[in-house]
Amino acid sequence: MRLSELAAETGVGIPTLKFYMREGLVPPGERVNATTSRYAVAHVERVRLVRALVDGLGLSLAQVRTVVSALDRPPASRHELLGAAQAALPSPYTNHAVTEEVRDLVARRGWSVHPGATALRSLSGAIEAARAAGVELAPATLDAYAAGVETIAAADVAAAWAAATPEKAVAVVALGTALVDPVLAAMRRLADEAMSAQT
Amino acid sequence: MRLSELAAETGVGIPTLKFYMREGLVPPGERVNATTSRYAVAHVERVRLVRALVDGLGLSLAQVRTVVSALDRPPASRHELLGAAQAALPSPYTNHAVTEEVRDLVARRGWSVHPGATALRSLSGAIEAARAAGVELAPATLDAYAAGVETIAAADVAAAWAAATPEKAVAVVALGTALVDPVLAAMRRLADEAMSAQT
Repeated sequence: MRLSELAAETGVGIPTLKFYMREGLVPPGERVNATTSRYAVAHVERVRLVRALVDGLGLSLAQVRTVVSALDRPPASRHELLGAAQAALPSPYTNHAVTEEVRDLVARRGWSVHPGATALRSLSGAIEAARAAGVELAPATLDAYAAGVETIAAADVAAAWAAATPEKAVAVVALGTALVDPVLAAMRRLADEAMSAQT
Repeated sequence: MRLSELAAETGVGIPTLKFYMREGLVPPGERVNATTSRYAVAHVERVRLVRALVDGLGLSLAQVRTVVSALDRPPASRHELLGAAQAALPSPYTNHAVTEEVRDLVARRGWSVHPGATALRSLSGAIEAARAAGVELAPATLDAYAAGVETIAAADVAAAWAAATPEKAVAVVALGTALVDPVLAAMRRLADEAMSAQT
């Protein structure tokens, strides 16, 4: 398709598409002649991804570039791939030390996790920040959260492994991890409302 | 305590504390004389809250002001309170129309939710954005997510209702909703890694 068709298909204007290509977020089209390039379905998918990262998650251009470049060099194994995709996405509290409480929680749940996983630090920092702001987060609450999250993670992994190709699995994992966060946040608000109406 | 003690207690510098008070995010202290004011434990809690909202969630000053002003006028019932606290917090995709799929999901789970709840629109928009970016989100996946989220919401509501006073419950709900999101996001990344190692 032509650039004007890519614009029509994605709902993103031609100046913005040109900007994305200059910034390396979307690969250039295949040159047909001096004034025309041709674009494929992969371009449509990439443009939609960039929009979702920018509009949906509010990522900066630099962060989008990190995610996109992780997609362009998929790692060897699926387990490795998950780590690489997650590391490319920004997480809060990553300069925090891992607490004993978080180590204990992971051990208690029997989760096999790399000791250097960024999420261990994010979790420790997020728990501390919530508590500092007055949210108690009792051990029983954290255990109940962990049980709920296990159900969610089993669905995540089933969806990722169902993907047809490794490239597609990278996309599902990298994007799924971040793009599903707002889905779960909205669901949790609905379930909170439903549960509070019952009590 | 004096302003210098409030600074020491919270780890926030005096110029920043003065800025928060000028901006109405932290109430002024009780005036003792022309040069001295006195601050209470409530000030410590408020300053920690503002830090968590700014640093942890990356909220703008205007968004922090909205959250803080919801805390300063608690609504009548606990169920109402939850809606008010959630509405004060920014959510993505709120200008999206509620989809039939989301209505069906809520009905299927038996969730009693106000038809105008912002989270219905957020959920519809977040699902669409994830799909547009290539994350499939099959109906079975959404149902598994909903089951996991119910476990989490039951823990949320138990924690909120355990709070001693209505004011404290407002804090738990308003902050808990937003400040627990990063806790759950980090937990999900760990559980994803653990589940993917098993398969």
